[in-house]
Amino acid sequence: MTVVRRGAGRFELVVFDADDTLWRSEDYFVTAEEFFREQVEPFASNGVDVLEVLRRTEIGNIPISGYGVKPYALSMVQAAVAATDGAIPSRVVAQLVDYAHDMLSHPVDLLPGVVDALAELSATHRLGLITKGDLLHQMRKIRESGLVSHFERLRVVEEKDVPTYRAVFTEWQIDPAAVVMVGNSLKSDVLPIIELGGHGVHVPYHVTWNHEMVLEHNGDHTELASISDLPAWLAAL
Amino acid sequence: MTVVRRGAGRFELVVFDADDTLWRSEDYFVTAEEFFREQVEPFASNGVDVLEVLRRTEIGNIPISGYGVKPYALSMVQAAVAATDGAIPSRVVAQLVDYAHDMLSHPVDLLPGVVDALAELSATHRLGLITKGDLLHQMRKIRESGLVSHFERLRVVEEKDVPTYRAVFTEWQIDPAAVVMVGNSLKSDVLPIIELGGHGVHVPYHVTWNHEMVLEHNGDHTELASISDLPAWLAAL
Repeated sequence: MTVVRRGAGRFELVVFDADDTLWRSEDYFVTAEEFFREQVEPFASNGVDVLEVLRRTEIGNIPISGYGVKPYALSMVQAAVAATDGAIPSRVVAQLVDYAHDMLSHPVDLLPGVVDALAELSATHRLGLITKGDLLHQMRKIRESGLVSHFERLRVVEEKDVPTYRAVFTEWQIDPAAVVMVGNSLKSDVLPIIELGGHGVHVPYHVTWNHEMVLEHNGDHTELASISDLPAWLAAL
Repeated sequence: MTVVRRGAGRFELVVFDADDTLWRSEDYFVTAEEFFREQVEPFASNGVDVLEVLRRTEIGNIPISGYGVKPYALSMVQAAVAATDGAIPSRVVAQLVDYAHDMLSHPVDLLPGVVDALAELSATHRLGLITKGDLLHQMRKIRESGLVSHFERLRVVEEKDVPTYRAVFTEWQIDPAAVVMVGNSLKSDVLPIIELGGHGVHVPYHVTWNHEMVLEHNGDHTELASISDLPAWLAAL
């Protein structure tokens, strides 16, 4: 007699990253940078690279304020004033903050193939989601994504690193060796789970190949061209 | 033979609020308001209550940006510009953001009695911490408090309400009836756990009485004058 069970196979839990794995995120920051440039450059001295000032400000603030739209907005304010030596009117600075508030409220823009892939996978595997950044904004996106019912486990974390993952999996009472993590970042989604003895699946955000389902595969790490390829890859293990 | 075990008694888990229960928080916002008033009022028209503008802005932004220093800072920027009709220089606006960054980095200021009470309680009970607000800032305060080793469970949540607590206790695999929550807010720390069948202990933030350890007690709810009274109260159950 064969017993078919959920989560059959090597992996007990398939954990997804969210931003730029399930839905668009980085694109909004690219558009925001363009808005910042348009608003700030007219008040800057010739030759000042206002985006360079913004990026330096952002990186400097990460240890204090972390990741996400709100720290980005605070960095925009500081960078706008620094890059223009105070010449920018405060009304324009307030518009940068208004823009960030709009970013916090934008609709969730799911990536192609996500709805079908998760529906298919949730029938055969236990699914989890671990995402980094602002608790409120991430949880709103999770709720508005329409995907929440697929996830048995959800967590917003400060940093996606080995100690954080170890703590989460301990709390979830799951052996990391039985976890596969799926995400667009090698550094955040793939390498830490390999270090913990599990498997990482890298699905790059901007990938246009169509002909190779599995771009690369070794014992610890798999490259897929699209999240749509994940159900077949897991089924074939 | 008597078996003495951790967590003996009615309650298996004692869960603490953090801000204004374990360490000062609200005081920093009161001081920040004063800074805001000093910076913004000189540019406002006569009769404009700049703090009233700030408070209305804050409340309006909560659904979008939530609680904590970063949303507060974004509201300060918008309110400063609105309250002065754009007359405030952008350099002063940037100082408001700098001030908020300082708030994110300030040392943790533990409330009187906390260190001893937690040391005593952790010898007899399993302890948890549930706090609301910004993930990064709250986690930094937890780490810097020196108290982290006392807590078996930690969670930063978006809202302290019945659905959130229910989800957390489900994940922690603990019956809410076996939980006592300790905090300075009736609305956030006491009433939800009563609704879930557990017990709430209210320790008001600004309390100066010294003579009554238990100010009030009924089946679901206890008022204590100080967190220092908690070990004796729990031991006497």
